[in-house]
Amino acid sequence: MGLKLYGLPMSTCTTRVLTCLHEKGLEFELVPINLFGGEHKQPPFLEKNPFGQIPVLEDGDLTLFESRAITAYIAHKFRDSGCDLIRHGDDNEAAVVRVWVEAEAQQYSPAIQPIVFQCLVAPRIGKTSDQKIIDESVEKLGSVLDVYEARLSKTKYLAGDHFTLADLHHLSYTFYLMKTPYASLVESRPHVKAWWEDISARPAFVKVSENMKFEAK
Amino acid sequence: MGLKLYGLPMSTCTTRVLTCLHEKGLEFELVPINLFGGEHKQPPFLEKNPFGQIPVLEDGDLTLFESRAITAYIAHKFRDSGCDLIRHGDDNEAAVVRVWVEAEAQQYSPAIQPIVFQCLVAPRIGKTSDQKIIDESVEKLGSVLDVYEARLSKTKYLAGDHFTLADLHHLSYTFYLMKTPYASLVESRPHVKAWWEDISARPAFVKVSENMKFEAK
Ligand SMILES: N[C@@H](CCC(=O)N[C@@H](CS)C(=O)NCC(=O)O)C(=O)O
Ligand SMILES: N[C@@H](CCC(=O)N[C@@H](CS)C(=O)NCC(=O)O)C(=O)O
Repeated sequence: MGLKLYGLPMSTCTTRVLTCLHEKGLEFELVPINLFGGEHKQPPFLEKNPFGQIPVLEDGDLTLFESRAITAYIAHKFRDSGCDLIRHGDDNEAAVVRVWVEAEAQQYSPAIQPIVFQCLVAPRIGKTSDQKIIDESVEKLGSVLDVYEARLSKTKYLAGDHFTLADLHHLSYTFYLMKTPYASLVESRPHVKAWWEDISARPAFVKVSENMKFEAK
Repeated sequence: MGLKLYGLPMSTCTTRVLTCLHEKGLEFELVPINLFGGEHKQPPFLEKNPFGQIPVLEDGDLTLFESRAITAYIAHKFRDSGCDLIRHGDDNEAAVVRVWVEAEAQQYSPAIQPIVFQCLVAPRIGKTSDQKIIDESVEKLGSVLDVYEARLSKTKYLAGDHFTLADLHHLSYTFYLMKTPYASLVESRPHVKAWWEDISARPAFVKVSENMKFEAK
């Protein structure tokens, strides 16, 4: 029984997991979920994830949801194949990875999500984008990226000298941010820009990002 | 060199870590940070946490921030003393702990935080509480707690039969929620209520919660 990922190739949370699977060179099956038809709010899917969201990973009898819990599982279970995404050999390095994984989840993600939603998603689902929300989020994201700029002037990656989950978790949303008028948030900060160019050029993400297109439905 | 925790005994994020330290029976020093005086936005503290927030943990040369990264570090490093908060002996159980740790961070926390802030914090810092935000958050939290109610009707704790970080992370905010007019969100769901009564009665949290008072400053 192999790995089965329920999700969509353009969904940010799905691509977080897809990138991790590719970094590890793992075989898996991607099972598409019809979000537009509401399949994720129907009982068969709710049994996999009671919050009714993609992605979900099945590994044999084990069913997992929440993208960051899934990547941590993959990074841990397959720690000896592909890139070591959690620095499992050193407790202190592993702790620093967790700090920056949390920084993405608690600081970066709440600031970048509304920008991507308002600029790219809202227009496609017939909503007008809310400039006030965008402006507030751009300011918040700018402050977070100031911290990243200082950090990345000292270490090549967020958690130190190695690419880890802490960097990987940023890929999906930043990829879409770069398609908005606010790409300059990254472009204007030299160390953030170099980091972004480095991590987004990794073969695993290049492969995943080829399918990251919002299709009009 | 022992463990040094920078924070405040009534701060939700600090108490998340304090509870974890007590569950493990660890000795540590609590170093108060003068939030009202802006100490957390001054260089000495920003060197510990560039985001300028409490809590911060120092363990010898290692400096960590983000409460959930700190608890994971403690739970991992001291996995063999006190309560096993991460189910480290079984990869699948550990994965399920991470799923519900993420559920707290991604689903529960964004819904409960604004309620606690608007009901308890805003009035104390001279702001009027925003009923629209409260109403939206109460609805969101209700949906999350419906999922918890179903889950807790099948397993005693969120991640299964054992108390883990997934439960522990809920304590601080839920404690304050119970002091708002919205305690019924918990009281009205029998399994959630039983779970809350169980986890909040654990000696580690009883000790921590004795100091969870907002003081008028
Ligand atoms: N915290 C979750 C968020 C998952 C999420 O928001 N998924 C979106 C697609 S990117 C979804 O399923 N949206 C439909 C919905 O929430 O109803 C994770 O990281 O997996
Ligand atoms: N995601 C952070 C949040 C920390 C946080 O919000 N701390 C609050 C006190 S509970 C703080 O320092 N607030 C001051 C500020 O943000 O300026 C964590 O879990 O540690």
